[in-house]
Amino acid sequence: MPVNIDEELKKAEVLIEALPYIQKFNRKIIVVKYGGSAMVDEELKRKVIEDVVLLKLVGFKPIIVHGGGKEISSWVKKSGMEPKFVNGLRVTDEPTMEIAEMVLNKVNKSLVSMIQDLGVKACGISGKDGGMLHVKKKLSAGEDIGYVGDVDDVNPEIIHALLKDDFLPVICPIGFGSDHHAYNINADDAACAIARAVDAEKLAFLTDTEGVFRDFEDKNSLISELTTAEARKLLAGGTIGGGMLPKLNNCIDAVENGVSRVHILDGRIPHCLLLEIFTNKGVGTAILGEDAEHFYNTNI
Amino acid sequence: MPVNIDEELKKAEVLIEALPYIQKFNRKIIVVKYGGSAMVDEELKRKVIEDVVLLKLVGFKPIIVHGGGKEISSWVKKSGMEPKFVNGLRVTDEPTMEIAEMVLNKVNKSLVSMIQDLGVKACGISGKDGGMLHVKKKLSAGEDIGYVGDVDDVNPEIIHALLKDDFLPVICPIGFGSDHHAYNINADDAACAIARAVDAEKLAFLTDTEGVFRDFEDKNSLISELTTAEARKLLAGGTIGGGMLPKLNNCIDAVENGVSRVHILDGRIPHCLLLEIFTNKGVGTAILGEDAEHFYNTNI
Amino acid sequence: MPVNIDEELKKAEVLIEALPYIQKFNRKIIVVKYGGSAMVDEELKRKVIEDVVLLKLVGFKPIIVHGGGKEISSWVKKSGMEPKFVNGLRVTDEPTMEIAEMVLNKVNKSLVSMIQDLGVKACGISGKDGGMLHVKKKLSAGEDIGYVGDVDDVNPEIIHALLKDDFLPVICPIGFGSDHHAYNINADDAACAIARAVDAEKLAFLTDTEGVFRDFEDKNSLISELTTAEARKLLAGGTIGGGMLPKLNNCIDAVENGVSRVHILDGRIPHCLLLEIFTNKGVGTAILGEDAEHFYNTNI
Amino acid sequence: MPVNIDEELKKAEVLIEALPYIQKFNRKIIVVKYGGSAMVDEELKRKVIEDVVLLKLVGFKPIIVHGGGKEISSWVKKSGMEPKFVNGLRVTDEPTMEIAEMVLNKVNKSLVSMIQDLGVKACGISGKDGGMLHVKKKLSAGEDIGYVGDVDDVNPEIIHALLKDDFLPVICPIGFGSDHHAYNINADDAACAIARAVDAEKLAFLTDTEGVFRDFEDKNSLISELTTAEARKLLAGGTIGGGMLPKLNNCIDAVENGVSRVHILDGRIPHCLLLEIFTNKGVGTAILGEDAEHFYNTNI
Amino acid sequence: MPVNIDEELKKAEVLIEALPYIQKFNRKIIVVKYGGSAMVDEELKRKVIEDVVLLKLVGFKPIIVHGGGKEISSWVKKSGMEPKFVNGLRVTDEPTMEIAEMVLNKVNKSLVSMIQDLGVKACGISGKDGGMLHVKKKLSAGEDIGYVGDVDDVNPEIIHALLKDDFLPVICPIGFGSDHHAYNINADDAACAIARAVDAEKLAFLTDTEGVFRDFEDKNSLISELTTAEARKLLAGGTIGGGMLPKLNNCIDAVENGVSRVHILDGRIPHCLLLEIFTNKGVGTAILGEDAEHFYNTNI
Amino acid sequence: MPVNIDEELKKAEVLIEALPYIQKFNRKIIVVKYGGSAMVDEELKRKVIEDVVLLKLVGFKPIIVHGGGKEISSWVKKSGMEPKFVNGLRVTDEPTMEIAEMVLNKVNKSLVSMIQDLGVKACGISGKDGGMLHVKKKLSAGEDIGYVGDVDDVNPEIIHALLKDDFLPVICPIGFGSDHHAYNINADDAACAIARAVDAEKLAFLTDTEGVFRDFEDKNSLISELTTAEARKLLAGGTIGGGMLPKLNNCIDAVENGVSRVHILDGRIPHCLLLEIFTNKGVGTAILGEDAEHFYNTNI
Repeated sequence: MPVNIDEELKKAEVLIEALPYIQKFNRKIIVVKYGGSAMVDEELKRKVIEDVVLLKLVGFKPIIVHGGGKEISSWVKKSGMEPKFVNGLRVTDEPTMEIAEMVLNKVNKSLVSMIQDLGVKACGISGKDGGMLHVKKKLSAGEDIGYVGDVDDVNPEIIHALLKDDFLPVICPIGFGSDHHAYNINADDAACAIARAVDAEKLAFLTDTEGVFRDFEDKNSLISELTTAEARKLLAGGTIGGGMLPKLNNCIDAVENGVSRVHILDGRIPHCLLLEIFTNKGVGTAILGEDAEHFYNTNI
Repeated sequence: MPVNIDEELKKAEVLIEALPYIQKFNRKIIVVKYGGSAMVDEELKRKVIEDVVLLKLVGFKPIIVHGGGKEISSWVKKSGMEPKFVNGLRVTDEPTMEIAEMVLNKVNKSLVSMIQDLGVKACGISGKDGGMLHVKKKLSAGEDIGYVGDVDDVNPEIIHALLKDDFLPVICPIGFGSDHHAYNINADDAACAIARAVDAEKLAFLTDTEGVFRDFEDKNSLISELTTAEARKLLAGGTIGGGMLPKLNNCIDAVENGVSRVHILDGRIPHCLLLEIFTNKGVGTAILGEDAEHFYNTNI
Repeated sequence: MPVNIDEELKKAEVLIEALPYIQKFNRKIIVVKYGGSAMVDEELKRKVIEDVVLLKLVGFKPIIVHGGGKEISSWVKKSGMEPKFVNGLRVTDEPTMEIAEMVLNKVNKSLVSMIQDLGVKACGISGKDGGMLHVKKKLSAGEDIGYVGDVDDVNPEIIHALLKDDFLPVICPIGFGSDHHAYNINADDAACAIARAVDAEKLAFLTDTEGVFRDFEDKNSLISELTTAEARKLLAGGTIGGGMLPKLNNCIDAVENGVSRVHILDGRIPHCLLLEIFTNKGVGTAILGEDAEHFYNTNI
Repeated sequence: MPVNIDEELKKAEVLIEALPYIQKFNRKIIVVKYGGSAMVDEELKRKVIEDVVLLKLVGFKPIIVHGGGKEISSWVKKSGMEPKFVNGLRVTDEPTMEIAEMVLNKVNKSLVSMIQDLGVKACGISGKDGGMLHVKKKLSAGEDIGYVGDVDDVNPEIIHALLKDDFLPVICPIGFGSDHHAYNINADDAACAIARAVDAEKLAFLTDTEGVFRDFEDKNSLISELTTAEARKLLAGGTIGGGMLPKLNNCIDAVENGVSRVHILDGRIPHCLLLEIFTNKGVGTAILGEDAEHFYNTNI
Repeated sequence: MPVNIDEELKKAEVLIEALPYIQKFNRKIIVVKYGGSAMVDEELKRKVIEDVVLLKLVGFKPIIVHGGGKEISSWVKKSGMEPKFVNGLRVTDEPTMEIAEMVLNKVNKSLVSMIQDLGVKACGISGKDGGMLHVKKKLSAGEDIGYVGDVDDVNPEIIHALLKDDFLPVICPIGFGSDHHAYNINADDAACAIARAVDAEKLAFLTDTEGVFRDFEDKNSLISELTTAEARKLLAGGTIGGGMLPKLNNCIDAVENGVSRVHILDGRIPHCLLLEIFTNKGVGTAILGEDAEHFYNTNI
Repeated sequence: MPVNIDEELKKAEVLIEALPYIQKFNRKIIVVKYGGSAMVDEELKRKVIEDVVLLKLVGFKPIIVHGGGKEISSWVKKSGMEPKFVNGLRVTDEPTMEIAEMVLNKVNKSLVSMIQDLGVKACGISGKDGGMLHVKKKLSAGEDIGYVGDVDDVNPEIIHALLKDDFLPVICPIGFGSDHHAYNINADDAACAIARAVDAEKLAFLTDTEGVFRDFEDKNSLISELTTAEARKLLAGGTIGGGMLPKLNNCIDAVENGVSRVHILDGRIPHCLLLEIFTNKGVGTAILGEDAEHFYNTNI
C-alpha cells in the first residue's frame, strides 16, 4: 500500500481530538465579529470563511457580523469627499451614510458568495431586514456626528428564520432610527447586541491584536482568560490601550447578558477560529463570567 | 350621529367589491417587477409600496424584483467614469459592476425599510443569497460587454424560506457566474426567471408606457388583453416599438412556462397594481395563455 | 383608455385606508352576535354575511353566534301552541324546546350556506357539539320557565379545531344541562360566554338600536365610547332602557373578562361591521376597559 | 377472594378474542348508516351509540350517517300538511324541505348529545357544512318531486378536519344544489357517497331486515356473503324484494368504488355492529369484491 | 340464522362493559413489572403478553419491565459456578454479572418476539440504551456484594422515543455505574424508578402472592385497597411477610412520586392484568394516595 | 504566547481538509459491519467507536452491525459443548442458538455503553426488535445445520425511528423465522441486507485483510477500486481466496441494490474508517457501480 499510513493516522487523531469540542458546541450559536486584517488579506479571508463553513458543517450555528471600515473611507474619497473622524467615530453625513451602506452591502454579498462557493447556504442581511437593528442617535462627547447609532433594540426574528432553514446569516451593521433613516453602527457593538439577542454560546472578535495584555507595553503579559471582575479591575487600572477599551467593555456587557464566553482573537493568525474552538490551547484572550470554569492557565 | 354615513357606506362597498379578487389570489405568489418612473417619483414610490403591503396583508404572497438603472449611471459618473451602452445593454467592466452591485443593494434595503415602516416583515436579497441566480455571460451581438449575465438557473430555496416565515422578499438582479464573479442581470429578465421558478400566479411589470399598442403611433390602439399567439403575431408584424420588444418576449416566455397572467402596467398611474388586481377594469395590457379565459374586451 | 381612472383611484385609496385596521386585527378572533332586523331583512342579511366573509379573507377569525327569536314563535304557532313569555324570557316547555332547537339549527345551516356560497369554508354547530355549552337551569324571579339555561361552562375545543382548519364557526345558542337535556340560551349571553372562552379581541352585537344613549329619550345623546366604570354609573343612574340593560351588563362582563372591546352596533345600517372596523369613525357604542385608549370623541 | 373469578375470566377471554379484529381495523374509517327500528326503539338506540363509541375508543374512525324518515312525516302532519310519496320518494316542496331540514338537524344533535354523554367528542354536521354534499335534482320517472337530490360531488374536507381532531362526525343527509337551495338526500345514498369519498374500509347499513335472501319468501335462504358479481346475478334474477333493491345497488356501487366490505345488518338485533365486527360469525349479509377473501360459509 | 345470538350478545355486553375503563386510561402509561410464575408457566406467559397487547391496541401505553431470576441461577450453574445470595440479594461478581446480562437480554428479546407475533410493534432495551438507568453501587448491610446497583437517575428519552413511534418498550433491569460498568438491578426497583420517571398512571407488579394480607397467616384477610398511610401503619405493625416488605415500600414510593395507583397482582391468575383494569372487581391489592377515590370495598 | 502555533495550524488544516468529505456525506447513512480483530483488540475497539462517534457528530448517520463469532464459541465450550462448523457455517442447534443470542446481545449492549460514554445516544437492537430481520432457514450444501438463516425480508421501521430521534442503532444479527424461532445470521449478510433496506450511502466491512488482491499470493497486487463488473470477472478468475469470496459477492449485491460504495477495510489499521472517509487516499478496496466516478488509481 503506497499510502503513508503514519501521516494519515496523525490526521485521524486530529479529527478525534476535535470530538469533545464538536459535542460541546453542537447546535450552539457562535457570533463571529469579522473585521480588520483578516478582511483585507485575501489568504486570511479565505481561511476565516473556511473556518466558519467547517463550524456550520459540524453542527454549530455560526453568524457573521462584519465591518468594512477601510473600504468605506476609500469610496468616500473616490466620491470626492474627505473622511472625517471625531474621537475615533466616523462623522457620517447623508452622502457618507449612503456610501457606507453601499459599501457594507457589497462586502456583505461578497462574503455570502464565498460561503456559497464552499457549499454552505448563506444569506446576507442588514439591520434593516426584518427590522432587526433599531438604533438611537449616538453623540460623541455631546457632539452631533450624523447618522451614527447605538443599537437600542434587536428583533432577531429574521436571524432565527434563516437559522431554522439552515442558512448562515451574514450581517452588516446598518440600523434604522425612529426617523426611519439608515444609521451606521460600530460592528463590535452590533455583534455584541446580536449575540445577546440570540443567546449566543460564544462571541468571537477577530482583531488585529494578540489579545489583552496585562501591561500593553509588555508583549509577555498576554492574558489567556479573564473573568468579568478581573476585566473591570484591569479597565480601572488604566493600563488598557485605546482600541481595546470599548472592545473589553463590549465583552463584559455580552458575558453579563447571557453569552457564555467572549473571545478576543488575533485575526492575523490563520484559522484562529478553529484553533480557539478545537484545540485545548486558546489563542488570544477569553472573557467569561465569575463562576465559569477556567480552561487554560492564565498568567494574570 | 355626526358621521357622514353615505360616504362611509361607499367605502364599505369598495371593500366588498374586492372580495372575489381577494379570494381568487389568496396564498398566490405575485411577482412585481418594479422600476421606471414609479421608482423615481417619491409619491408614486410610496403608493407602489402601499399596494404591495396591502396585497401581503390580504393574503397574497408578493415578491418585488427591482432595478436601479438611472442611479447606477449617476454613481458611475460620480466615480469619474462614463456610462457606456451597446445595443441598450450597459457595458459592465469590473469597476462598473462594483458600483452596480453597491447601488442595487442600497436601493434594495431602502425598499425593505419602507415596507417595514408599514408594518410588514421584509427581507432584501440579491441573486447571490442562497445561490439563487446563476448566470452565464451574455454577449451583445457577439461582442463582450463585461459582467452582464443571462439567468440560466434559479434556486428558489431562499425565497420559499422567506415566504414560509411570512417575510416579503425584495430582490435585486445580481447573479453569479461559474467564475464565482458577480454579474448584472436585466431586471425584467430576472423577474421573469424568478416568476417561472416559483410558479407565480401573476407577474406584473411596472413600466413607463400605457401598455402594448396595436400601432405604437396610434394612442387609441391600446390592447387590453393578448394571448401569446396574438403577441407572437404582433411581434412578427413589426409594429412593436423598441423597449417593448424584449418585454413582450419575456411575457410570452413567462406565460408559456407556467405563470397564469403577465401584466404590463403603467407605473405612472398611482396604485396601478391595486387597480389591476382589485377592479374589473384592467389597466395596461395582460398577456395570457391560449386557453385562458378573457377578462376584458380587447380591441385587437 | 376608457376607464374612469379617477373613480377607480378613489377605490384604491379606500383599500389603502383599510391597511392599518387589517394589520391591527390580523389573526384576531371577532365574535359577532347576529340577530334582530339584520336577520330578517334579506338585503341586510346579505351585507352582514359579506362583511363577515371579508373579515375572514383579510385575515381575521370571525365567529358568528346567532339567534332566531321571531321564527321560533312563528313555528310554535304553526304547531298549534301559543308562545309564552315571563319577564321577557320565553317559557320553554318540552315541545317548545324541540321546536326552538329545530328552528335554530335550520337558521344555522342557512347561514352556513350563504357563507359557503361566497367561497369561505363554514361549519354550523350548536352548544351540544363537542360538549361546548354546558348550562344550569335559569329561573325567572324564582319561577320555573322550563328549558332555559345560563351558560356555566364553555369547552371551546370544537371552535379551535374549526378555526385551525380555517372554517368559520357559525353557532346557535343551544346548550345542555347536567340532566343531558337541551336548553335554550339567550344568544347575547351565549356570544358573551364564547367571546370570553376564546379570548376574543372584539365582541360585536348587531342590534336594532343606534347604541347607548346618555338619555334614551334624547336622540342626540348617543355615546360613542364608554369605559366599564362609566357604563356602571350609567346603569346605576336608571336612564338605560329595558332591552339595553342586560346587553350592557353583558358588555361589562365581557370586557372585564378579557375581551378588548365590545361594540353595540346598529344592525339596521348596512355594512355596519365594516364601518366599525375599517373606518376611524365608530358607529354605535363601544365599551372598553378603564385603561384602554379612547379612539373617538365621546359626548358623555 | 369473594370475586367469581371464573365468570370474570370468561370476560377477559372475550376481550382477548376481540384482539385480531381491533388490529385489523385500527385507524380505519367505518361509515355507519343509521336508521330504521334502531332509531325508534330507545333501547336499541342506546346500544347502537354504545357500539359506535366503543369502535371509536379502540382505535377505529366511525362516521354516522343517519336518516329521520318517520319523524319528518310526523312533523309534516303536525304543520297541517299531508306527506306525499311518488315511487317511494318523498315529494319535497318548499315547506316540506324546511321541515325535513329542521327535523334532521334536531335528530343529528340529539345523537351528538348521546355520544358526548358517553365521553367521546362528536360534532353534528349536514351536507351544507364545508360545502360537503353537492347534489343535482332527482327526477322520479321523469316527474318533478321537488327538493330531492342525488349526490354528484362530495367535498370531504370538513370530515377529515373533524377526524383529525378526534371528533366523531355525525352527518344528516341534507345537500345543496347549484341553485344554492337545500335538498333532501336518501340517507343510504348519502352514506354510500361519503364512504366512497373518504375511502372507508367498511360501510354498514342498519336495516329492518335480516339481510339478503336468496329467495325472499324463504326465511332459510339468508346469504352471509355475496360478491358483487353474485349480487348482480341475484338482482337480474328478480327475486330481490322492493326495499332491498336500491340498497343492494348501493352496496355494489360502494364496493366497486373502493370500500372493502359493505354490510347489510339487522338493526333490530342489539349490538349488531359489534357482533359483525368483533365475532367471527357475521350477522346479516356482507357484499365484497370479486377477489376478496371470503370470511364465512355462504349458502348461495 | 345459525349463530347462537344469545351467546354472542353476552360477548358484546362484555366489550361494552369495558368502555369506561378504556376511556379512563386512554393514552396513559401503564408500567407492568413482569416476573415470577407468570414468566415460567408458558400458558400464563402467553396470557400476560395477550393482555399487554390488548392494552396497547385499545389505546393505552404499556411498558414491560421484566426480571429473569431463576434462569440466571440456572446459567450460573451451567457455567460451573454456584449462585450466592446475601440477605436475598445475589452476590454478583464479574462472571456472574456477565451471565446475568446475557440471560436478561435473551429473555428480553424473547418477550419482544412474542409481542411482535401478536402484531404489535415492540423494542427490547436495557438500562444501558440511551443511558437510561444510572446506578450507584448497593451495599448489603455494609457488605460488598458486587455489581448490584440502586437506580439513582433515569433518563427516559429512549422510552419516550419508542412510545412516540408506537413501539412497546420491553425493558430489562441492567444499569450502568459511574465506573461505566454494568450493574444488576432488582426488577421491582427498576419498574418503580421507571414508572416515576415517565409519570405512569399505573404500576402493576405481577407476583406469586394473592396480594397484601392484613395478617399473612390468615388467608381471609386480603386487603383490596390501601392508602399509603395505611400501608405505612401496616409495615410498622410487623405483620407483613418477607418478600412483600420491599415491594410495599416500592409501592409507597411510587405513589408518593406521582404514580396514581400501584397494584400488587396475583400473576398466577390468568389475565390478571385485564381483570384488574377492565372489571370493577379488583384482584390483588391496590396502593393509592391519601386523597384518591376508593374503588372497592376494603376489609382493612 | 507559549503555544506551538505551527503544530496547531497543521491540525486546523487537517480539519479544513475534511470539509468536502463532511459535506459529501452529510445526513447520509453509513452501515459499518464491525467484526474481526477490531473487536478483539481493546485499543482498536476504542478507535472504531471513536470513529463512529465522530461520524455521527459531524452529521452522518452511522449504523453498526456487529458479529461476535469467537466469543460465541468460547461460551459454547464453557457450557460443556463443542462448537461445530460445516463449510464454515456454525451448526446451530437449540442450545447453541440460545448461547449465540445471549452472547450477541451482551456484545451489543457493551458497544452501546462505549458509545454512550463518548456522549452520543445509542440503542442496541436485534433483528427481533420491531420485527426487523425475517429469515428463511439456510441449508449448507443441502444439509440441515440448525437455526442458521438467510435474511429474506427487512422491516427498517425501528431503525428509522431511532435515527429520527438521533439515536445511533447498534444491531446484532439475530433474526426470526416464520416458525417464530430465533435464527443466527451471518453478520456480513445482515449488514448487507440492512444497508440495502435503508438505502445506505456506504457500507464498510471491517475485516482482517488488507483488501482484495488481484492475486492473493502477491501482496503487491492490492486493488483500490473495483467496479461490480471487474469484481465479477475476478471471481470468475478463481484467484479470490476463501473468506473473501462471499464478502465480495455481498459487496456486488449491495452495490447492485442501491448502496453507492461498499468498502472492504483493514480493521487492523487504527481509525481505518476515518482514513477511508476523510482522506483522499483510500485504504482497502472499494466496490462501486459501473458508472460511478473512480476516486483513486487502481492497479487492476
